[in-house]
Amino acid sequence: MCSTHLSERGDKETVETGELLMPKFDRDGLIVAVVSDVVSGEVLMVGYMNEEALTRTIETGEAWYWSRSRQSFWKKGETSGQVQTVHEILTDCDQDALVLKVSVAGNGATCHVGYRSCFFRKTVKPEHGAVRLEKVEAEKVYDPADVYGK
Amino acid sequence: MCSTHLSERGDKETVETGELLMPKFDRDGLIVAVVSDVVSGEVLMVGYMNEEALTRTIETGEAWYWSRSRQSFWKKGETSGQVQTVHEILTDCDQDALVLKVSVAGNGATCHVGYRSCFFRKTVKPEHGAVRLEKVEAEKVYDPADVYGK
Repeated sequence: MCSTHLSERGDKETVETGELLMPKFDRDGLIVAVVSDVVSGEVLMVGYMNEEALTRTIETGEAWYWSRSRQSFWKKGETSGQVQTVHEILTDCDQDALVLKVSVAGNGATCHVGYRSCFFRKTVKPEHGAVRLEKVEAEKVYDPADVYGK
Repeated sequence: MCSTHLSERGDKETVETGELLMPKFDRDGLIVAVVSDVVSGEVLMVGYMNEEALTRTIETGEAWYWSRSRQSFWKKGETSGQVQTVHEILTDCDQDALVLKVSVAGNGATCHVGYRSCFFRKTVKPEHGAVRLEKVEAEKVYDPADVYGK
């Protein structure tokens, strides 16, 4: 039973302009995946996939990652319900980065801190001194304690 | 003459919910930066910054990266004219990824292959066999030969 598979890396031109997915995994076997909302285009999170997580994502249409901190597969939403349905997967020219356009189930948030996007803070440049952060999301979507416990 | 600076990493809560930029650089001293169009939200490219590139970006308002292939600083647009004016820099919860909202000067394209975005191809899942790619941008914005030579 052979299903879909990724292709081996080709030469520069084949990778950059060709019609086969031949992702470059780094020395840890990972590729970076930028996750954006399929409707608004907002960047929700950045995750990492190994070959198996990418294949599972393509096969199932739901996003799987490799958790670098836990060193294990991680189906987004397994605990929180914030499952990502993947509508489109894009690759960049040198095929060492992916963009996933998703819709989020459950409470619709992505960040474990409680916000819609993990990118809920922007930098503020001071005249001098430490670069500060300011929230761009006014309110949390949910209280993480309700999902993950105290 | 001391100007702006980044902060040392704090504990988990300070990093995740605090008001200071304390980025986590990986073992190569780099942090991933997702670059999106400030108006459309489209993801244009993924680059990497070391501490100096990030500081230069914050200080100048134009995007600087660290080129992993050339192992050197890289001001986007220096050769191509596709300079990125940075309108906003966001960080994620654990501060190991950035989003830059930019506008692009010159011909308005970002990809060295000639397309507006580096993510100009999407995956197509076959019934079985190799995962294929299909262009999502119908036409190139420019001919790279005109910018970079043959």
